[in-house]
Amino acid sequence: MTARKEKIIIREVSLRDGLQSIGRTVPTGQKLEWLAAAHGAGVREIEVGSFVPARLLPQLADTAELLRAARAFDGLQASVLIPNLKGAERALDAGADLMLLPLSASLQHSLANLRKTPDEVVGEMARIRAARDASGSRTLIEGGIGTAFGCTLQGYVAPDEVLRLAQALLDAGADRISLADTVGYADPARVAELFGRVRAAVGDRLHGAHFHDTRGLGLANTLAALQAGVRRFDACLAGIGGCPHAPGASGNVSTEDLAFMLDSMGYETGIDLERILQVRALVAGHLGDVPLHGALWRAGLPKTRASAGANGRTA
Amino acid sequence: MTARKEKIIIREVSLRDGLQSIGRTVPTGQKLEWLAAAHGAGVREIEVGSFVPARLLPQLADTAELLRAARAFDGLQASVLIPNLKGAERALDAGADLMLLPLSASLQHSLANLRKTPDEVVGEMARIRAARDASGSRTLIEGGIGTAFGCTLQGYVAPDEVLRLAQALLDAGADRISLADTVGYADPARVAELFGRVRAAVGDRLHGAHFHDTRGLGLANTLAALQAGVRRFDACLAGIGGCPHAPGASGNVSTEDLAFMLDSMGYETGIDLERILQVRALVAGHLGDVPLHGALWRAGLPKTRASAGANGRTA
Repeated sequence: MTARKEKIIIREVSLRDGLQSIGRTVPTGQKLEWLAAAHGAGVREIEVGSFVPARLLPQLADTAELLRAARAFDGLQASVLIPNLKGAERALDAGADLMLLPLSASLQHSLANLRKTPDEVVGEMARIRAARDASGSRTLIEGGIGTAFGCTLQGYVAPDEVLRLAQALLDAGADRISLADTVGYADPARVAELFGRVRAAVGDRLHGAHFHDTRGLGLANTLAALQAGVRRFDACLAGIGGCPHAPGASGNVSTEDLAFMLDSMGYETGIDLERILQVRALVAGHLGDVPLHGALWRAGLPKTRASAGANGRTA
Repeated sequence: MTARKEKIIIREVSLRDGLQSIGRTVPTGQKLEWLAAAHGAGVREIEVGSFVPARLLPQLADTAELLRAARAFDGLQASVLIPNLKGAERALDAGADLMLLPLSASLQHSLANLRKTPDEVVGEMARIRAARDASGSRTLIEGGIGTAFGCTLQGYVAPDEVLRLAQALLDAGADRISLADTVGYADPARVAELFGRVRAAVGDRLHGAHFHDTRGLGLANTLAALQAGVRRFDACLAGIGGCPHAPGASGNVSTEDLAFMLDSMGYETGIDLERILQVRALVAGHLGDVPLHGALWRAGLPKTRASAGANGRTA
């Protein structure tokens, strides 16, 4: 291995995507415990909530409070999801470090979930960029292209359409974009193709990947995206997240399994594996009977890991 | 995709590795149901048992009977594990298509589990090859190098040692070798390195990979081995297999998730995904409260898969 390890960022999204999908309300105090524990384990990017109307997602109604609390943690980038310009204004007011506007590449999923066409979301991106610039804020804007591989309503989505939307979001003012496999339609071949093509077109402005493990391919897809040059991955502690169309199905890629894979491969994630397993246990304790996922916690770390060096390599 | 799809073989090992690890005795009639159902779903290589003394593994005592029954299935390669020359003689008598002699690359694991050094196993391989040749049988001999990445007793294993043992097994008369990550010490970087080096040295005589999903990396490791040129993978229905050192830990890579990944990527496995999910349900029914693994069965196949073609691709 090289003396200086390459960095990979894991963005923890359980407080937003995880809790949104499983529909469980966790008290703000417990969320703050998660946040502090995750930061303590080395996580430096956390999506803390969503500025959607509280009546739609009451479990995320404390997002502004979490953003405020996040300021106390050294070097923490606290991000939020925003559904539209109104959400962006709240995010700017609350001082989010980054706001993520989701767009569904699947027209049918977009109409069903966002009640807008993808191109109407691109229009909203332009208004959000104007509002950010007018505010003088340094809040980053990420366009998150969901159902980038397909969805249950429409089936597979054509890479050309994702490429078009990626460029349109950037042209409309997004600072960066990310691609999400929202419901498990990606596979390593499609990931290599789509991430490769989008990266060839927009370079490092393709800034992240968000994989669900719905059909078990989460980490294999992650590996394919890593090979395509992606260096930031979303994940959820205990693999929460689920899939509204498949009760009990596995959710987001598990943070602890992802951190273990990257660390084992010789990358630097900044995450302490023993501590992140403790954070998983904390989260599991708060979630009670919610189905949890991930494999590492059952087996534990390789026994001789510590003596062989941080990533088990002796050289 | 190309018009003609590349073939990948999945060898089903639940009747041997799965049942051995979980210590559950399944009646022979139920095993024959699994075997018939797996064959019906398109599986063409099945490890049906092990010729170890029945007092050690009573759940595999019906191996000869399963081998006999396997002859009735068109195009089925029925293989068995053999611990030594005596097991090989039984396999030759019973007409196994292939016999796999396991060797542990970890000296400590080898001494603890096989009560021999790796080099003593290489010596046994030479005697087995001589017996096979003397018998005039066409039974193939595979040397299966287990703990090829490490084990709980010894920690990580040096690739140089695996390379040396691979060559030694072939020199001693193995027709082919395979590499196994027995307890979840592999990661995609190590897989790329080790499989790449062994393949460079012995070519296609490196004939298979056997991954456990102990720490969640089973399919990511599979992808790395696939990229290194491997075209045959062991797997277990419902991901059974477990790990004797970690009660409840996930076992072998799940056959149904693996078949789904390969099929989605455009490879031809010969396995019908809907039918293999039915076989999984059959196995699950027979196993009762044994912990099962895998993700696909919970979410099901992508909804529009059939209409989009066998692998979801429209082109």
